[in-house]
Amino acid sequence: MPQTRLSVTLLAHTPDALALIYAAFRQCYHPGYVADMWPRLLAGEITAEKQAAFVGRILDSGHESPIEHVSFTFAVAGVSRALSHQLVRHRIASYSQQSQRYVDAAGFDYVLPPQVAAIPEARERFTAAMEQAGAAYAELQEILTRHGRGDKANEDARFVLPNACETKVVTTMNCRSLLHFFELRCCTRAQWEIRAMALSMLRLCQEALPVIFSGAGARCERLGYCPEAARFTCGRYPLLEQIGSISS
Amino acid sequence: MPQTRLSVTLLAHTPDALALIYAAFRQCYHPGYVADMWPRLLAGEITAEKQAAFVGRILDSGHESPIEHVSFTFAVAGVSRALSHQLVRHRIASYSQQSQRYVDAAGFDYVLPPQVAAIPEARERFTAAMEQAGAAYAELQEILTRHGRGDKANEDARFVLPNACETKVVTTMNCRSLLHFFELRCCTRAQWEIRAMALSMLRLCQEALPVIFSGAGARCERLGYCPEAARFTCGRYPLLEQIGSISS
Amino acid sequence: MPQTRLSVTLLAHTPDALALIYAAFRQCYHPGYVADMWPRLLAGEITAEKQAAFVGRILDSGHESPIEHVSFTFAVAGVSRALSHQLVRHRIASYSQQSQRYVDAAGFDYVLPPQVAAIPEARERFTAAMEQAGAAYAELQEILTRHGRGDKANEDARFVLPNACETKVVTTMNCRSLLHFFELRCCTRAQWEIRAMALSMLRLCQEALPVIFSGAGARCERLGYCPEAARFTCGRYPLLEQIGSISS
Amino acid sequence: MPQTRLSVTLLAHTPDALALIYAAFRQCYHPGYVADMWPRLLAGEITAEKQAAFVGRILDSGHESPIEHVSFTFAVAGVSRALSHQLVRHRIASYSQQSQRYVDAAGFDYVLPPQVAAIPEARERFTAAMEQAGAAYAELQEILTRHGRGDKANEDARFVLPNACETKVVTTMNCRSLLHFFELRCCTRAQWEIRAMALSMLRLCQEALPVIFSGAGARCERLGYCPEAARFTCGRYPLLEQIGSISS
Repeated sequence: MPQTRLSVTLLAHTPDALALIYAAFRQCYHPGYVADMWPRLLAGEITAEKQAAFVGRILDSGHESPIEHVSFTFAVAGVSRALSHQLVRHRIASYSQQSQRYVDAAGFDYVLPPQVAAIPEARERFTAAMEQAGAAYAELQEILTRHGRGDKANEDARFVLPNACETKVVTTMNCRSLLHFFELRCCTRAQWEIRAMALSMLRLCQEALPVIFSGAGARCERLGYCPEAARFTCGRYPLLEQIGSISS
Repeated sequence: MPQTRLSVTLLAHTPDALALIYAAFRQCYHPGYVADMWPRLLAGEITAEKQAAFVGRILDSGHESPIEHVSFTFAVAGVSRALSHQLVRHRIASYSQQSQRYVDAAGFDYVLPPQVAAIPEARERFTAAMEQAGAAYAELQEILTRHGRGDKANEDARFVLPNACETKVVTTMNCRSLLHFFELRCCTRAQWEIRAMALSMLRLCQEALPVIFSGAGARCERLGYCPEAARFTCGRYPLLEQIGSISS
Repeated sequence: MPQTRLSVTLLAHTPDALALIYAAFRQCYHPGYVADMWPRLLAGEITAEKQAAFVGRILDSGHESPIEHVSFTFAVAGVSRALSHQLVRHRIASYSQQSQRYVDAAGFDYVLPPQVAAIPEARERFTAAMEQAGAAYAELQEILTRHGRGDKANEDARFVLPNACETKVVTTMNCRSLLHFFELRCCTRAQWEIRAMALSMLRLCQEALPVIFSGAGARCERLGYCPEAARFTCGRYPLLEQIGSISS
Repeated sequence: MPQTRLSVTLLAHTPDALALIYAAFRQCYHPGYVADMWPRLLAGEITAEKQAAFVGRILDSGHESPIEHVSFTFAVAGVSRALSHQLVRHRIASYSQQSQRYVDAAGFDYVLPPQVAAIPEARERFTAAMEQAGAAYAELQEILTRHGRGDKANEDARFVLPNACETKVVTTMNCRSLLHFFELRCCTRAQWEIRAMALSMLRLCQEALPVIFSGAGARCERLGYCPEAARFTCGRYPLLEQIGSISS
């Protein structure tokens, strides 16, 4: 019953990502056929700087859909079922998650919240609860198997598994969906665990495709002000009403 | 820490559902403007039988999208977080789920799997596990609150809550998405809990809009054969290879 | 070959819309089951004012998904295929559009752009083009029918129909998708025809559900500033950089 | 005003596509973390044959979502606006289409339907209609420009452009959405133009990822019978009722 830690790995992303986004934008506004220029794009005839400048200018105009052509696929482990339940609420995405119906969870790893870990008394209570849940799961597996439930023993025993139980998931999102995901989940208002995962994903995206992700993150990063209600703001950025008034 | 039971309530659905589906189909194939005929449709000038016959004929032709105009909204309670984690994987739907971050789960209700309930030894072990989890949650709440975590005490204490913990959710799906949901979740291969919920939803849909839902359910109900692989079939319907051979 | 005019009709929307949104929000934050309070909600035990205040407060916090439970279905006519091609790019929506494969377009109505109508010389040229296209369509229908194309005569003849050709469509969007649609299409940067349609839809939504739609429209209406790039702004609202500076 | 021809080019697809699908499936059913095995997968430690066998077996069980992690991006040209209006109705996809608002369509290329081309009289009438539409567009551009419409001249002049007018589009779909697209659009019931495009896309997919696409196409290809209503079938495959009877 060991504690686990967040792991985020970028498995794959659409190749030639900047060139593809450049080509898609260009197809909207130019008479030529992007397939004809594609070999020259791949050969570097148009520099990455020029591509980035063009893409940046159009994105500023509010035209976002061409960045959907590029997707990122991550493997994530060391996260709780509390996190994954939030994650899969993002509907413009694909998920392949480790099944508690099929995979034996005996001796499961668990996520220990940092604020619990920071309080020895809380940590001890938490760890004991994990041990209890692990014992209950194993005993129920045994009883159900003995009563002939076979393959279904895991399926019913898992009802005693805690939210803290580790899960693993492969997820794919396109760039537009990722920007939206980061806006919500990199904000300090997001729950700590999914925020840590989102920040890890963001760093990997920034390395792979800085043109799109260098300014990404919570909404304040792009806006320059905090769009949350005053009672929710973390204070890193001023509120809109604090940066000026329309009448002034 | 009481056991809970499934409750499914139809809160609302698009009004004049059959007329609306009829109107949408008709707009595809007729020169007139459906808004002009809409008052006469509502006044019953075209009988429900005629509307149903027209809709049925076009649905048979494979044209399904007009049934998307009608949505159903259900409230669901007495279900586990194991169920809700599966439910929200259906992406063409909307969900408003009771938050474990904001709502105090002390003394939570729980779902007892019927196959566990049927074995006294298993039931006793399961019930004890619920008590243990409830105690751990309450104690962690108390410790975290005492250490000044305030609003966040629930957020971190919930990591010890079990999958069996009851959740409540309001969900809306359109008819096309519902038919797909029923195909997957009314099948005997589905997990027992989400299958029970799907069957309850299906009965409510059948009462409200029999033209669309009278033949709905697992895929076999509509096909007349079981499309699952031979090793998965429940045997209620024959496999495709059992009902004939192309060469014969 | 007459000119046509925009018509937008609200065919249906989810009943008890405010109560349903209130119930969905409440289910997220309260321990009770909304199905239990639903009869009392419908009976008016909680006033519409209280419901609106609660909904408004949560929407301000950035929690938008519960408004997805309510959908609006419109019938639209008197619009061009240029408009409908833009409209159906909105993917979180349902469409049933008059088919040019199945519906005879002989003597079609057409949309005359106001800026063309305002210039007599342009209007005359435009009208002549419509007559030419109508004649070409009818003659191709006749030739293809004479050569035994039967049902397929319309399908191939329609290749000569102009973008201006009238289409009719039934469309359903939920409130969240509508708010996004209005942000993009009520902006003065949107094309005139889809903007006129969006403004008509917005007025109908505002009458039916003011709590959600009274402040809706282009993004500037909600933000109080224009989020477009400086070279695109229409000037109705100041740019963000004009309403203050973070350093001041 | 030349005739154009269909061109479909595969610009990009998710790299290591089979390995990625294999990894995603495996993550659902195995205790390990796919990121740990990913380098060995890329190094070929598990043969493509073994990966294909595993993927095929799970796909047969009805579990389709892991193939969503792989996307294909195509550039398409030489297609009509009649086609693109159908194409963009597929909502689980991304599109970047040449804009008639921004790109000058003077002297446009057009799509000539084969059944029109096959009848000299029809071809002549069609070609004349294209010339008429081209002349009307150019003259309206000139009039609107002369009256100070500037950038908006194209936007309004395009109302006279025909459906046959060529468009170019970049589109991305994931494998699951592609399979659905092929089911509908490779069927002989589909309109000839979009069917030709779908078949071209399918051939490119089959070359790139045969494990997923070798058996793809119209629904009959996979089912072994025609699921259409008897009045619609093309006869290539028997109807379900023709291949056997449940009672026999």
